[in-house]
Amino acid sequence: MAWIEPEVNKKPQKPMFLCVLSNTKTAHIPKISTAGNTAELTDFTPAGDAELIETGNIISVPVLPMTPPYGTPTPAIITRSALELTDVPYNFINSGLIVTPYVPCIDMKAKPGEDIREQIAVRDVQQIFERAKFLSRRLRNQVDYVIIGESIPGGTTTAMGVLMALGYKGNVSSSSNENPIEIKKQVVEKGMKASGLIFGCLKNDPMKAIECMGDPMMPAVIGLVAGFQSTEISIILAGGTQMAAVYALIKHLGFNTEKLAIATTRYVVEDKSANFIELTRILGVPMVYVADPGFGKSSLKGLQRYETGTIKEGAGAGGAMHLAGLYGISQDDFRAEVENICRLLKTGH
Amino acid sequence: MAWIEPEVNKKPQKPMFLCVLSNTKTAHIPKISTAGNTAELTDFTPAGDAELIETGNIISVPVLPMTPPYGTPTPAIITRSALELTDVPYNFINSGLIVTPYVPCIDMKAKPGEDIREQIAVRDVQQIFERAKFLSRRLRNQVDYVIIGESIPGGTTTAMGVLMALGYKGNVSSSSNENPIEIKKQVVEKGMKASGLIFGCLKNDPMKAIECMGDPMMPAVIGLVAGFQSTEISIILAGGTQMAAVYALIKHLGFNTEKLAIATTRYVVEDKSANFIELTRILGVPMVYVADPGFGKSSLKGLQRYETGTIKEGAGAGGAMHLAGLYGISQDDFRAEVENICRLLKTGH
Repeated sequence: MAWIEPEVNKKPQKPMFLCVLSNTKTAHIPKISTAGNTAELTDFTPAGDAELIETGNIISVPVLPMTPPYGTPTPAIITRSALELTDVPYNFINSGLIVTPYVPCIDMKAKPGEDIREQIAVRDVQQIFERAKFLSRRLRNQVDYVIIGESIPGGTTTAMGVLMALGYKGNVSSSSNENPIEIKKQVVEKGMKASGLIFGCLKNDPMKAIECMGDPMMPAVIGLVAGFQSTEISIILAGGTQMAAVYALIKHLGFNTEKLAIATTRYVVEDKSANFIELTRILGVPMVYVADPGFGKSSLKGLQRYETGTIKEGAGAGGAMHLAGLYGISQDDFRAEVENICRLLKTGH
Repeated sequence: MAWIEPEVNKKPQKPMFLCVLSNTKTAHIPKISTAGNTAELTDFTPAGDAELIETGNIISVPVLPMTPPYGTPTPAIITRSALELTDVPYNFINSGLIVTPYVPCIDMKAKPGEDIREQIAVRDVQQIFERAKFLSRRLRNQVDYVIIGESIPGGTTTAMGVLMALGYKGNVSSSSNENPIEIKKQVVEKGMKASGLIFGCLKNDPMKAIECMGDPMMPAVIGLVAGFQSTEISIILAGGTQMAAVYALIKHLGFNTEKLAIATTRYVVEDKSANFIELTRILGVPMVYVADPGFGKSSLKGLQRYETGTIKEGAGAGGAMHLAGLYGISQDDFRAEVENICRLLKTGH
């Protein structure tokens, strides 16, 4: 059974939250990503997420990451709340950003991802992987519980691409209430063709799947997981279908997946246009945590819209909220903190 | 009294070692820096130091940082030994590198420093400071003892420049056994002139002193210290005259310096051409730790040359060895580890 409620009060001793920030030019394809008001503004979304998580507001990016048409605030507000309430250490990892945030990031020296309709989607897979592995080896004696989130607009399309290359039908989720799944499928088909791939043909070469169809967030997360292999460290992949794709890559690399789990929000799990739970079952994910922010009870319209599927997940929100649960923070107290953060938000200039 | 032997077995609970890596074009002035075989090769020194500390060897840089004429290996071998023996967590901070290492760094988004004979030496002092402050605020609940080292060729000249601007005569140390002190003085004089400064004129404006005469390592270290203000965290500035200059800047900014100490090697303290101890006394540094690697007892010629002042300090070596002392590691065991590392060194291709 994949759907398991968060365990309360099982507070980890040495937790850490890592958020991998990336861009892929795939997000510039019209209607692919709504993680940002326009295709071009999605370039700012990961940087804006990081600034918001660190400071409660944007600093250098022009507008707060919002999802149209009603201005639903980025799930980074959830992540910020969890980190504020728990005081858990965190770091940002720049793995191929077009726009870097004002706040410090650990640099993977990665290039932004290309449009997957090109032959090559990620140019430096192995180097990103190796660099991330250095990082997690460095962290090994500092942590016992690592939550890895992501912020990369267009990332559900690259997730679908990688899943197809590995031989899984991924009806991916979206940061929109009208999931443009047909457009994504067409983009993925074009990408497969451009790279000379057919369904499942790279099941034995996951790194190549990233190179042809993926994005620069993927080798960073996989490298982190690689550096934690053969330790007792629990790793929570915090995200929806994107982290399911990452899990698939890890599995196909032959890594030990016993210490892995996926944590996401209820909004991803309930997305009828996607097949997240089915996918995690097929992949054999040992544990899926589903966090429910209960935003239906909120008086703020921006938060209520999460309940209608306007936006679902991102910036490790589900994993961060799961962490808050482990610290014994109730859904009501958590929502109060999110509301607090929302009220202090500047929306842009 | 400034010269205090390391306390043994006072192991900190949550230590962390940070190494700030920077370049300044000041190092390109002939005979200024010998932290690298040629002026141009000094560009690679901080990156090489980081790679060596992390892996025991260079990865992407063309040659191991060596000091001519006899190929004395970089003090980063001392730092590597200490981190290997103690398992203390560490991070590298890129604050204005020309060449970045293969291993991950936290990015301050700083430009490399200009030649101090130009009007402006550091273009983005305030931004580097703010970004570093974000970083140490993030680290506040993870650490109780922070050692901050540096690797920046040409850094003793910028240190002298900043000290002059603040009103201190700094006969600075050098990574050479023939300290080109007269050349450094001439360079500093030209720099003061270019920026329209006279001795001591910036004692009330330390940030401006960095901008005119300093290097990008300085605002990063000061920003880190700023983020740790009002905590019980002990901060060890690991370096010689460069860290004395940083201490001077911190003091002139009016920060609380009670939790600060400087740790360096015996080779800096014994450098007769410099006035490190006198300077720390004038500055009122609350505590100076002097680590003695005892390389005179080594059978390796490269290490013996440390005793003749060929090379003295760098990459936080003194502070890292002080840390090893706190862990109860003896001088002999420490030297054995350094020798081990030396034997495994590739010197370049």
